[in-house]
Amino acid sequence: MRWENRFSKDAVAVDASEIRELLKVLADPRIISFAGGIPDPALFPMAEMNKIVSALESDPDIYRQAMQYSPTEGYLPLREWIAARVTTPQISLQTENVLITNGAQQSLTLLASTLIDNGDAIAVASPTYLGALQVFSGRRPRYLSIATDEDGLLPEEVERAFKQGCKFLYTIPDFQNPGGMTIPEDRRRRIVELAHQYDVPVIEDTAYRALYYDAPPPPSLLEIEGQLLGEERWQDEGLVMQLGTVSKTMMPALRVGWTIAAASLIEKLVLLKQANDLHTSTFNQIIAHELAINVLDQHVEKLREVYGQRRDAMVAALQKYLPNSTRFTVPGGGMFVWLTLPEGLDAKILLEKALPEAELAFVPGASFHTDGGGKNTIRLSFSTNSPEVIDDGMKKLSALISRESSVVLT
Amino acid sequence: MRWENRFSKDAVAVDASEIRELLKVLADPRIISFAGGIPDPALFPMAEMNKIVSALESDPDIYRQAMQYSPTEGYLPLREWIAARVTTPQISLQTENVLITNGAQQSLTLLASTLIDNGDAIAVASPTYLGALQVFSGRRPRYLSIATDEDGLLPEEVERAFKQGCKFLYTIPDFQNPGGMTIPEDRRRRIVELAHQYDVPVIEDTAYRALYYDAPPPPSLLEIEGQLLGEERWQDEGLVMQLGTVSKTMMPALRVGWTIAAASLIEKLVLLKQANDLHTSTFNQIIAHELAINVLDQHVEKLREVYGQRRDAMVAALQKYLPNSTRFTVPGGGMFVWLTLPEGLDAKILLEKALPEAELAFVPGASFHTDGGGKNTIRLSFSTNSPEVIDDGMKKLSALISRESSVVLT
Repeated sequence: MRWENRFSKDAVAVDASEIRELLKVLADPRIISFAGGIPDPALFPMAEMNKIVSALESDPDIYRQAMQYSPTEGYLPLREWIAARVTTPQISLQTENVLITNGAQQSLTLLASTLIDNGDAIAVASPTYLGALQVFSGRRPRYLSIATDEDGLLPEEVERAFKQGCKFLYTIPDFQNPGGMTIPEDRRRRIVELAHQYDVPVIEDTAYRALYYDAPPPPSLLEIEGQLLGEERWQDEGLVMQLGTVSKTMMPALRVGWTIAAASLIEKLVLLKQANDLHTSTFNQIIAHELAINVLDQHVEKLREVYGQRRDAMVAALQKYLPNSTRFTVPGGGMFVWLTLPEGLDAKILLEKALPEAELAFVPGASFHTDGGGKNTIRLSFSTNSPEVIDDGMKKLSALISRESSVVLT
Repeated sequence: MRWENRFSKDAVAVDASEIRELLKVLADPRIISFAGGIPDPALFPMAEMNKIVSALESDPDIYRQAMQYSPTEGYLPLREWIAARVTTPQISLQTENVLITNGAQQSLTLLASTLIDNGDAIAVASPTYLGALQVFSGRRPRYLSIATDEDGLLPEEVERAFKQGCKFLYTIPDFQNPGGMTIPEDRRRRIVELAHQYDVPVIEDTAYRALYYDAPPPPSLLEIEGQLLGEERWQDEGLVMQLGTVSKTMMPALRVGWTIAAASLIEKLVLLKQANDLHTSTFNQIIAHELAINVLDQHVEKLREVYGQRRDAMVAALQKYLPNSTRFTVPGGGMFVWLTLPEGLDAKILLEKALPEAELAFVPGASFHTDGGGKNTIRLSFSTNSPEVIDDGMKKLSALISRESSVVLT
């Protein structure tokens, strides 16, 4: 019997992703990539990391414990740091509100397993993070796709989904992946109110929140929920779960992220995490904690400066070169600019031409949609290339779009 | 609405484990633990690890890449090393037969998601590894519990399970956790033949295989399947999936393990791993690979010597002190001795007395059974204590068992 015939229904539902196939192309050094949502390794805090490891080496007992099995919940000082960092005026987070995971991706995995039964409705933005769709699809939910505009989720569409009943809403309110949109404060408040009105939990993914290049983003959904409920009610009635990660602000290969939620939910997530992989590397958690308390704030300031210049370079180049039939977002932070090509232009076909002709890569937007839409959209990342390379790449991409648009229009 | 009411059926099926509650007690330094199946941190190869990190520090480009996102399949040199290491005379493993995971625990998670639908029958030994039961239970299977004797799985019981039809058999053929049994070669051969006769895949967990203290264990199920099928047929018809880990032979907090299987199965596992947590820490995989190629063999020889002495000390102490109403296994390797107390003695109640009275911990055996059995059994680990501490602990434990037995018998 072939293995395919042995697969569970859930496994059959998990399919190869566009991004994955693309990442293979990126091994070719001739290709300039605007595809991956990855940080620039040249900016990693290596000197600080070396100091941390040296300090461990000089304390053999702690170093040995760093290499041993450790509690599933995570390294206590790191959980304490996160609880203190995310605590809001109204919500005093405790360590039992924090679970350490292998990046926010595993937070999504554990939440999906904990909350989704086959056939359950869940609400996601259109477009939204592809990796979340991959996780959720492995639980075979029914997607309620929520339309967005340049300010992110449309509250009336959120309400329409909530009215139908759904297990949760998944959202990235700050500098969204892939669309670059940031939800304004009044809209955030409305979404949190709707969540309580219809009793729908909300997963708030804050992966890009610290990476702002103009003003800081509005209060998080968690903060707003705190204002709405107050401390005493939040621990019992809070519906917002907040995900965080060190992958964008420190280094992805630490594989350290977290989930913040009501203690009774965290308790169940811990059991699933224990079954999943026992615990996240103790060593990596210690490094993440030391980086967090010693260098994170200055480091993120540097990232804002460098990524901000790259954001500016991409926006300026697109303004200069793009045909005016193509629209794009101007993100206030994060890593992505979102292009909407003229109707009828297929971004996948454009990529197939861009790779050999312009030697550049991007992600066609269709994969970020659960509703079959977005065929004429593109996600561009500005995080890993210099302003000069960005300018050159956008020039070539724009020329290609102009050419292909004229083909479509004639 | 309380969070409990939002949990998926799968999440409800995952319950708190005995081992987990026990590990909390172990934070108390007064308690001598024979509970955890964990390596002794005093034996970790720290000097070699320091050399590896220093070498990385002196090569900044590679070091930065070590901290970046990387392919889901795993670090190629590590996959190559594993493929070469596990290759048998009949099965020449390729990198596409190897997926790197966060320890063998995550290998189990991915296999469970890929192969088990709710209600599917799966076959497990009684007793078996608790962590496997935790993962499998999260898919809500039907357990076919297979009886064991001092040589592990009983082939006639395996056949009885296979005849009923099941998605797979999970087994630890070498120095089993928790029972310490090793399946002899003829019995292994019979199990592999039965797997092919009834078309049932077999998950072979080799976590303890390298830790033998007398003779090396018999050929693995994978090797035997190679002998049965030959190379050309294995890649298409192989039913054995083999799991490995560096947690017992190197250091657990690297969180590096692997799955070896047919390429068409690995391909699906990669998709699920990608959805689960993107990839295993690049940094940790590089360290694991460097340790593997530079020091693993000498290091494991040292482990065999030290753990072998501890095994001997535990066996000698039990022979000296235990009342003869209590039987125990003499394991040829691994970390565990398995005790069977007189009928009617409850190991959980014994533990509740052992903790305050003898200040020692062990794992009551019931948790390793899916059939409600094993209430009068105990798992003892000899891996982390010196021969002197082991002798003292076994003396106290034996005295307690003698006293409690006399209570039961009178």
